[in-house]
Amino acid sequence: MDYVSGATRLFGIVGDPIQQVRSPEMFTAEFRRRGLDAILVPLHVLPGDFDACLDGLLRLRNLDGLIFTIPYKARALGLASELGAQARVVGAVNALARHGNAWKAEIFDGLGCVEAFARRGVPLAGRRLMLIGAGGAGSAVGVALAHERPAFMRLFDIDTARSQSLVERIQSVSPATMVEVAVPRVDDVDVLLNVSPVGMLDDARLPIAADRLPAHLVVFDAIVKPDRTPLIRFAQESGCTIVYGREMMRGQISRMVDFFTSA
Amino acid sequence: MDYVSGATRLFGIVGDPIQQVRSPEMFTAEFRRRGLDAILVPLHVLPGDFDACLDGLLRLRNLDGLIFTIPYKARALGLASELGAQARVVGAVNALARHGNAWKAEIFDGLGCVEAFARRGVPLAGRRLMLIGAGGAGSAVGVALAHERPAFMRLFDIDTARSQSLVERIQSVSPATMVEVAVPRVDDVDVLLNVSPVGMLDDARLPIAADRLPAHLVVFDAIVKPDRTPLIRFAQESGCTIVYGREMMRGQISRMVDFFTSA
Repeated sequence: MDYVSGATRLFGIVGDPIQQVRSPEMFTAEFRRRGLDAILVPLHVLPGDFDACLDGLLRLRNLDGLIFTIPYKARALGLASELGAQARVVGAVNALARHGNAWKAEIFDGLGCVEAFARRGVPLAGRRLMLIGAGGAGSAVGVALAHERPAFMRLFDIDTARSQSLVERIQSVSPATMVEVAVPRVDDVDVLLNVSPVGMLDDARLPIAADRLPAHLVVFDAIVKPDRTPLIRFAQESGCTIVYGREMMRGQISRMVDFFTSA
Repeated sequence: MDYVSGATRLFGIVGDPIQQVRSPEMFTAEFRRRGLDAILVPLHVLPGDFDACLDGLLRLRNLDGLIFTIPYKARALGLASELGAQARVVGAVNALARHGNAWKAEIFDGLGCVEAFARRGVPLAGRRLMLIGAGGAGSAVGVALAHERPAFMRLFDIDTARSQSLVERIQSVSPATMVEVAVPRVDDVDVLLNVSPVGMLDDARLPIAADRLPAHLVVFDAIVKPDRTPLIRFAQESGCTIVYGREMMRGQISRMVDFFTSA
């Protein structure tokens, strides 16, 4: 039993729901691989308790960092005393690292997604993309995709104001990319990315209404639990190339542990 | 890596300092032995942050219990919505267990100490005892010792008011026991118990001024880190029988996990 002792440094992932997250085992394994006596635990925070919970958690002297997941990536911005370059454009954070008595924040989702495509050898430059979800993670992915200079991006979020806000940020990063806000459609795109919570856990819904997906489509789903979301199963049945949420996560973890330990 | 996942239930130990505590590994091992997906982590809370930290921690929906150590055993009483029988007499708690939206509290230190003596076959009834420390743990030990009907108890604490308060509680439990408050002396007692923080971690002090201890003395030190406190080393050199803090701790753990899981 050498996973936790009185001297172990604490990290946490804050979300609601929380039981589906994989960060606890993945980050704790990465800490151990680097020889650090540290652990990352799940922290289930209800929206009405967010301010009080975070005020309490950030006062723990042996807590060195937090990860934020749904629905807190935008709200966590207010906790930071210093914002990283990605977080400033995205307007959301998914990691907070202790820096003395201050907290540095950055968002790594977008970079992780782009890295997952790069490792698969799937180019994004000049391609046509359909992105579903413009919340914390969706915005981060959108901004990171924009840096790859796609030819066209169609955005959808149930909250149209969020989509509009992301359009502006994408165009500030990549003015040459055509961007529109519209309901999900894939007949004219190369890549479909789901960065909404539709399909998470026992949610049987698809984030897109379609009888079949084109076989040439590359389908990415940011959800890590279940592994095979309704969208992923639909994409498999349609013969599409699939990029999994866990591939995005792996790329992020190493960068985030760097961030936690260099702050 | 199966020690922590998104579904793992959280427990914590709250104290200042925290790095010396052994509860994280010991409780986590006991949870696993019972087949429970649960972990106990260290929570380093500074005195000025206690109220805000605890307000935040108790709102975490996946946190099912807390242990309190130095200096919070008296202060934690205010968090309980229901007090156990020992906690009511002692006026301190070392465990808080979720009971729906309420928190049940109890103190297990005293019982653990008495059990450690019983397992060693060292009787306490009719004996003469010197007890150092009348804080949270010291009071709990004092009250539990009183239930064993010793002939005499001498109490010492740097805070005399705490010693006086413990005298009254001991006499309410065992009116026949002679009790006095005086500086530590062991020439006329059978058992010396240190339940103060003197000797913890790098503290090189002895809790008692003496050139040598009588060889017939039984010496107990509640401190678990280091294993061999200055007092324990002194007792070994003097040829005394020694009862270790970890023996008290083992007795407590099983009872406390019962409490956490039955609440």
